[in-house]
Amino acid sequence: MQDDEIVFCHQLGRAMPWFGMDIGGTLTKLVYFEPKDITPDEQDCEAGILRNIRRYLTRNSAYGKTGHRDTHLQMDNVEIRKRRGSLHFIRFQTTDMGNFLSLAKQKGMAELVTTVCATGGGAFKFEKDFRDQVNMKLAKFDELDTLIKGILFADMHNFTECYYYENAREIVKSEKRAFNFSQPFPFILVNVGSGVSILAVYGPDNYKRISGTSLGGGTFLGLCCLLTGCTTFEEAIQLATKGDNRKVDKLVKDIYGGDYNRFGLPGDLVASSFGQMHLNDKRCSVSREDLANATLVTITNNIGSIARMCALNEKIDRVVFVGNFLRVNPISMKLLAYAMEFWSNGTMKGLFLEHEGYFGALGCLLQFNGELAAALSESLDHSQPPSANTTPTQPTDAETSTECPAAADKPNDSTTR
Amino acid sequence: MQDDEIVFCHQLGRAMPWFGMDIGGTLTKLVYFEPKDITPDEQDCEAGILRNIRRYLTRNSAYGKTGHRDTHLQMDNVEIRKRRGSLHFIRFQTTDMGNFLSLAKQKGMAELVTTVCATGGGAFKFEKDFRDQVNMKLAKFDELDTLIKGILFADMHNFTECYYYENAREIVKSEKRAFNFSQPFPFILVNVGSGVSILAVYGPDNYKRISGTSLGGGTFLGLCCLLTGCTTFEEAIQLATKGDNRKVDKLVKDIYGGDYNRFGLPGDLVASSFGQMHLNDKRCSVSREDLANATLVTITNNIGSIARMCALNEKIDRVVFVGNFLRVNPISMKLLAYAMEFWSNGTMKGLFLEHEGYFGALGCLLQFNGELAAALSESLDHSQPPSANTTPTQPTDAETSTECPAAADKPNDSTTR
Repeated sequence: MQDDEIVFCHQLGRAMPWFGMDIGGTLTKLVYFEPKDITPDEQDCEAGILRNIRRYLTRNSAYGKTGHRDTHLQMDNVEIRKRRGSLHFIRFQTTDMGNFLSLAKQKGMAELVTTVCATGGGAFKFEKDFRDQVNMKLAKFDELDTLIKGILFADMHNFTECYYYENAREIVKSEKRAFNFSQPFPFILVNVGSGVSILAVYGPDNYKRISGTSLGGGTFLGLCCLLTGCTTFEEAIQLATKGDNRKVDKLVKDIYGGDYNRFGLPGDLVASSFGQMHLNDKRCSVSREDLANATLVTITNNIGSIARMCALNEKIDRVVFVGNFLRVNPISMKLLAYAMEFWSNGTMKGLFLEHEGYFGALGCLLQFNGELAAALSESLDHSQPPSANTTPTQPTDAETSTECPAAADKPNDSTTR
Repeated sequence: MQDDEIVFCHQLGRAMPWFGMDIGGTLTKLVYFEPKDITPDEQDCEAGILRNIRRYLTRNSAYGKTGHRDTHLQMDNVEIRKRRGSLHFIRFQTTDMGNFLSLAKQKGMAELVTTVCATGGGAFKFEKDFRDQVNMKLAKFDELDTLIKGILFADMHNFTECYYYENAREIVKSEKRAFNFSQPFPFILVNVGSGVSILAVYGPDNYKRISGTSLGGGTFLGLCCLLTGCTTFEEAIQLATKGDNRKVDKLVKDIYGGDYNRFGLPGDLVASSFGQMHLNDKRCSVSREDLANATLVTITNNIGSIARMCALNEKIDRVVFVGNFLRVNPISMKLLAYAMEFWSNGTMKGLFLEHEGYFGALGCLLQFNGELAAALSESLDHSQPPSANTTPTQPTDAETSTECPAAADKPNDSTTR
């Protein structure tokens, strides 16, 4: 394909593939918009390479060894900037970025001068690799901006995007129900990726990052791999589903001898996570499943507790939990729903969204137009300025916890008081 | 010793041993006041059994297999209710309560009708054992009341009780320095035992419990035992001292490719605790020491982060950390001092107290008088009411996290969404 063809296609509208990428600490999330209203003019214009890419991206087969297209999340008949088409949701492990780039090159992407809108820490880490290996420029967008824009778009276009748990106070009975999120503001947004970020969102462009923790999905998976020998998130969740944290944690009844009725504390409440595991006999009697369940409960309750503090302090009663930690993970969602409802005496509500971890990538895709035009112009040595409604880069620490210094203490500094 | 002798001794003042016990989830803390101003009358009155008990309690030898008297914490020439003497600080594992009771019986305590002032969950759990095995009544006191009273007393009587870390922002250079805590209020109090309780303290009798987490000292020790095969807290701390969490955690630079200068985030900041441990090659290359260090850093930073949120919300700039998690643990203290100072831009200060985990037991001992008199009267069928200045029982959940429900999710309830 020649440069002038690309320019022609770009001027025509949007024959170039529309991508959004969120390159996180553990997972890379890719959202691809496949136009379905291609006009004969565009059909002619769409050269072999682009057709290849489209076919490749919409196939069900794997994207590298760990890649997966979440077909159940596909959104059809979506309108984006006056085009109708389907949104595809694809994820792969960030450690497989090398494979992804090789495949992209193999499919001919390197022959196109193109730009990918990206967010997440990897948009910085892999910028050079994209440029060198597939001739792609990464247009970097703010993680939190794209996250919120993605959420608002998905909720607007998917009637059943948002849900809650009915009967959240009785976990055994709690059931998923659609929630009308058409009036979303204000809400607390808890994004659980490898780490956790917590935002207070007052409007589409009015939000602040209020907290975070480094104990997130990466902590759950990392600890589970160490404690149980499992190797994948799916396996860790499956183990956790069959285990019982009460054999691992120290409960109120282990300390008080029973319920603590005077303060309405049930004996099964966790007083100290993993608090029985210093005892040899207890350690010998727990299963891998119990350890996985305890890890999941520990991480989930810690997130719930911090989120609830944030909601209280901001005086906001709706707490939206997103991020890939919640994928195939109803235990955590039900625990979070329980925690919000129970400890607030029913005044707070935990909400969840179907496209869990894809909002950053989706938000990126929505930013695509202006920034891409600018990038293309630049590449083709045109000199139009970028369109005014785009916000170039300045990502924030959405996946990092600003509260958590690494231990700089080395042996020599820490043995004395 | 006859009943009338006991009554006589009690009327004389305080020949009965003065104890305070804090029976926690992991450790039992015992504070014993040894009067040194014994008058000839008292000397005569002090029968063999009491002398035995005093000698036994002030010996250096172990109190059961896990028992230990912290001689470096002993406070001499202390005045309590017009008596002068020494305070002894003794701890043993709560799982060894059976041994403690056997020893107490062997030393003749069961032959005295006596009362021990106790707090902590174990004051409930072991109440029957004390009564049945050594004929002791437990006078139960509020955990938080006694904690605060103990702190204020210790600070008043020990000139070097309170300290902070100078140069807290540079962990390598930070050094312990005395802090003048004579005007203590208001302060945030973070009590790290098996679990964690956080209070806002505005005055000796004016405080509220504002938060807590089940991720405390019990979590550190339990996880360390599982991950490294160690068996004691001391061993876990020793391992942690020689390890490097940066081989275990996912750091900012692992996600962003380096420092994140734009937001002043150093590359060594933890983004996801244990976030590298899902990768087989990383898992194979970490040592037990690295895992212990990562566990310590994870738990410590989580506590620091929650404490800082509490301090911010209460607009209080001094955060006092106590509890046995800090014993022989300068890594955690320096990390907490760093976290308070660095993330608040120097407006917040982390403070520490020498008698770390003994304040509940000490506070109990201080409550001793009135409650004991009442209990004794009851036992001896006297009918005087308890003195007005004592607050009988009503312990709260000082060692439990009210935020953390145990997973009631069992396999059948949690496999569907």
